Amino acid sequence: MFPKNAWYVACTPDELAGDKPLGRRICDEAIVFFRGADGAVAALEDFCPHRGAPLSLGRVFDGTLQCGYHGLRMGCEGTVVAMPGQRTSVFPAIRRYAAVEHHGFVWVWPGRIEDADPAALPQLEWAGRPDWAYGGGMYHVNCDYRLMIDNLMDLTHETYVHAGSIGQKEIDEVAPQTRVEGDEVITERRMFDIPAPPFWQMALRGMGLPDDRPVDRWQICRFTPPSQVMIEVGVALAGQGGHEADPAVKASSIVVDFITPETERSIWYFWGMARRFKPEDPALTDSIREGQRKIFGEDLQMLERQQQNLEAWPERRLMKLNIDAGGTFSRRVLERLVAQEQAA
Amino acid sequence: MFPKNAWYVACTPDELAGDKPLGRRICDEAIVFFRGADGAVAALEDFCPHRGAPLSLGRVFDGTLQCGYHGLRMGCEGTVVAMPGQRTSVFPAIRRYAAVEHHGFVWVWPGRIEDADPAALPQLEWAGRPDWAYGGGMYHVNCDYRLMIDNLMDLTHETYVHAGSIGQKEIDEVAPQTRVEGDEVITERRMFDIPAPPFWQMALRGMGLPDDRPVDRWQICRFTPPSQVMIEVGVALAGQGGHEADPAVKASSIVVDFITPETERSIWYFWGMARRFKPEDPALTDSIREGQRKIFGEDLQMLERQQQNLEAWPERRLMKLNIDAGGTFSRRVLERLVAQEQAA
Amino acid sequence: MFPKNAWYVACTPDELAGDKPLGRRICDEAIVFFRGADGAVAALEDFCPHRGAPLSLGRVFDGTLQCGYHGLRMGCEGTVVAMPGQRTSVFPAIRRYAAVEHHGFVWVWPGRIEDADPAALPQLEWAGRPDWAYGGGMYHVNCDYRLMIDNLMDLTHETYVHAGSIGQKEIDEVAPQTRVEGDEVITERRMFDIPAPPFWQMALRGMGLPDDRPVDRWQICRFTPPSQVMIEVGVALAGQGGHEADPAVKASSIVVDFITPETERSIWYFWGMARRFKPEDPALTDSIREGQRKIFGEDLQMLERQQQNLEAWPERRLMKLNIDAGGTFSRRVLERLVAQEQAA
Repeated sequence: MFPKNAWYVACTPDELAGDKPLGRRICDEAIVFFRGADGAVAALEDFCPHRGAPLSLGRVFDGTLQCGYHGLRMGCEGTVVAMPGQRTSVFPAIRRYAAVEHHGFVWVWPGRIEDADPAALPQLEWAGRPDWAYGGGMYHVNCDYRLMIDNLMDLTHETYVHAGSIGQKEIDEVAPQTRVEGDEVITERRMFDIPAPPFWQMALRGMGLPDDRPVDRWQICRFTPPSQVMIEVGVALAGQGGHEADPAVKASSIVVDFITPETERSIWYFWGMARRFKPEDPALTDSIREGQRKIFGEDLQMLERQQQNLEAWPERRLMKLNIDAGGTFSRRVLERLVAQEQAA
Repeated sequence: MFPKNAWYVACTPDELAGDKPLGRRICDEAIVFFRGADGAVAALEDFCPHRGAPLSLGRVFDGTLQCGYHGLRMGCEGTVVAMPGQRTSVFPAIRRYAAVEHHGFVWVWPGRIEDADPAALPQLEWAGRPDWAYGGGMYHVNCDYRLMIDNLMDLTHETYVHAGSIGQKEIDEVAPQTRVEGDEVITERRMFDIPAPPFWQMALRGMGLPDDRPVDRWQICRFTPPSQVMIEVGVALAGQGGHEADPAVKASSIVVDFITPETERSIWYFWGMARRFKPEDPALTDSIREGQRKIFGEDLQMLERQQQNLEAWPERRLMKLNIDAGGTFSRRVLERLVAQEQAA
Repeated sequence: MFPKNAWYVACTPDELAGDKPLGRRICDEAIVFFRGADGAVAALEDFCPHRGAPLSLGRVFDGTLQCGYHGLRMGCEGTVVAMPGQRTSVFPAIRRYAAVEHHGFVWVWPGRIEDADPAALPQLEWAGRPDWAYGGGMYHVNCDYRLMIDNLMDLTHETYVHAGSIGQKEIDEVAPQTRVEGDEVITERRMFDIPAPPFWQMALRGMGLPDDRPVDRWQICRFTPPSQVMIEVGVALAGQGGHEADPAVKASSIVVDFITPETERSIWYFWGMARRFKPEDPALTDSIREGQRKIFGEDLQMLERQQQNLEAWPERRLMKLNIDAGGTFSRRVLERLVAQEQAA
């Protein structure tokens, strides 16, 4: 259950380096990604029309994708451009997908290519901006992509799953506020006059601010379909206006999450952090990425075991508490979009 | 195919130490075990009513089981006792199972809790007695629990599976005698005037008896439903009355087997030995346990491959020789009990 | 989909050494192989009629196969010959398969034993001949056996799959010629006046011939049902008649392939090389075998992934180019034989 007529992150540009194509299943479509002669990304069905070999076992050669079995050369449009000793006109074309490099990711539209709309690509305020830095990674997780959306739209789990790192009791004690704006869902939590946890102490120092004073803290999670969750997080010296305080007295960043279904029960999870402090410090980027990799890794077992439990008890209705409103409303948006897609 | 209204060994008490609960599937029920504030064992469905996470990934906190995902705190009765910021009255209860610590094991009744009868717990003559010592372990085996019952109710396999340890040709040469007493099945074999194998030589020395003289040997296997097999084994100096000889001229012990179905095709196999010689010697207990672990490990491949063969040839009728009478009669008891359960 | 009334290679004689029987699934039949008292190979269902244990977990004892569970002793004909304390007349027989050692392999006929015809065993011109040497090995591959036949009957894949070893561009540039002779299919490719690749340079030196001159090269692939592919390969000094040149100016060998289905989607692949140069050099035999093991190992991932792709897109029709004629005609022979078998 996922929209197919939508842009999903397929991979990062470095995964398409050299002459190796990339095979990756996305929304149950087996797709091979490679770069054509002009460097633009192409995305095709991972199935050679000659004998069914996966094209992703081949190599990129002169802007075409050469099958690693018998040398058929597939063009970026899904039509065969050459095969030794053969007339290419007899070969059937294979399916092509819309794919594009944008804002530091490769995006794919697993649905009808005619419907793919470049204007629908998300605009990321921090991408390519010198006053921001970005670092991230990927996890493969065996769960329905909606369980990951639930996870990110309810950060009370930080207190339990991430008790040893970013969790703090105060998160749990403040009720979130949730609202829907068109297809977007926003759930936010604001905490006042609390101690700054270690990550934010470090960030405050990076901004030249004291790290031992009470702060106001915020977490603003924004779901955008099909499966993007951006979480604005930050602290300001207490009593200065919190999220709305003058930039000179606060530190903030954006937790970036793109959740791409592989199948109905597995995902490619692209996570990262965009920050507006010390953007010129690549060692800090690395250090934050490794910290985030460790913390986000703590969720994996829980999500996979939750998936197994829900499959074992398919008839059970889960609860929808106030803390679950973010995930619940996000699922409704997805249900509506999928219903529209099926009706069309 | 197993009775659900029956007591099964779920785990040993040491598996419920510290603040970690134990998740274990028993008779196809996913159960989480933990200790309440009074130290008594609780057993609940391993499913958090909030979002379906396995409660066994949580931790025991102040006599409750705290879900590791969002902090719901489940009481020993299967009702929610607390969750930060939530009214607990809205939460549905989850299923509770009867569980009790008894004679050095934790027992669970996977069927209807209303039917759980503490008086039906087996009485183990050796448990907690200073003149006895007990040591044991557990194996997970991918086979129908009845294949393990067959195995233990026909010890001719010792000659082949355990040729290098406890097997001896004489076992094979004596026909067993099998009888049914109510729901119990007893199959026994008595050998007279034979050499003592190494294990029993050691035991005779422990009793201050000579180890180089002929002995009478016995094996008395007793099946008690649902899946307990106690095997009285021993030797006496030959011609003194065998099993009925004066305790001063014999050495004996009880091979203890509790076979708990995990699913229709896998088991938790609790094995051990209770002995009446040298009970005050813990090093001997350890040494016997390690020997038994090695010997009982020799059965695993055979049982798992037998299971696979029977699944591959489901229409085949197996033979029921005189040596198979113990297993055959035990299966009939089980069939009767399951039929009664289904009729009720 | 494979003929069952046919001879397949089951194993090599060294796999039946000592007292260990060999369990191997062939054409979806679970078979145990062992040697009787006279050293002849016996093949039986891998299922003890007593309790269903795999006989292959037992041991060969005095020309019988003793079950490793309770000591039943099975004779080479599939009838029980002894069991301690039991009358053997009550035991049902198990299925026997025709099996025979021939030309350095153990062959089995997984179909009706009444139809097994020793005269139908293939005659291998090189087997047991002092002027030839043979070395080979085995791979287990998760693919339909016909994919391996396709692979061997279209050597254009050498240019891509084996680019770093035996592939050369000239293979790709010459169209093969394919013909059917009764149940056999021959596809051949002849290349003239080309450089000798390293393997053939070595072979030319072995014949005392220059290794730096142009050669004529040939590849003659011969499919014989059910699944044997012999590939005559060689080079001659250019312009001397190629394949028909005087033996004094050429070097040649036979690539030997026996493809035995395990199931519909997995195979036991026996590969080797029989050569007519330096037959007295066992170090060369070893060196060729290891080279071949490495090269043939390059096909495995491609075949397994092709199998997965074909299962994922079962409705797709594959192309049948001229290079595919060898495999295509071989499949037609197999379809005809299977249809005949099913009609009978």
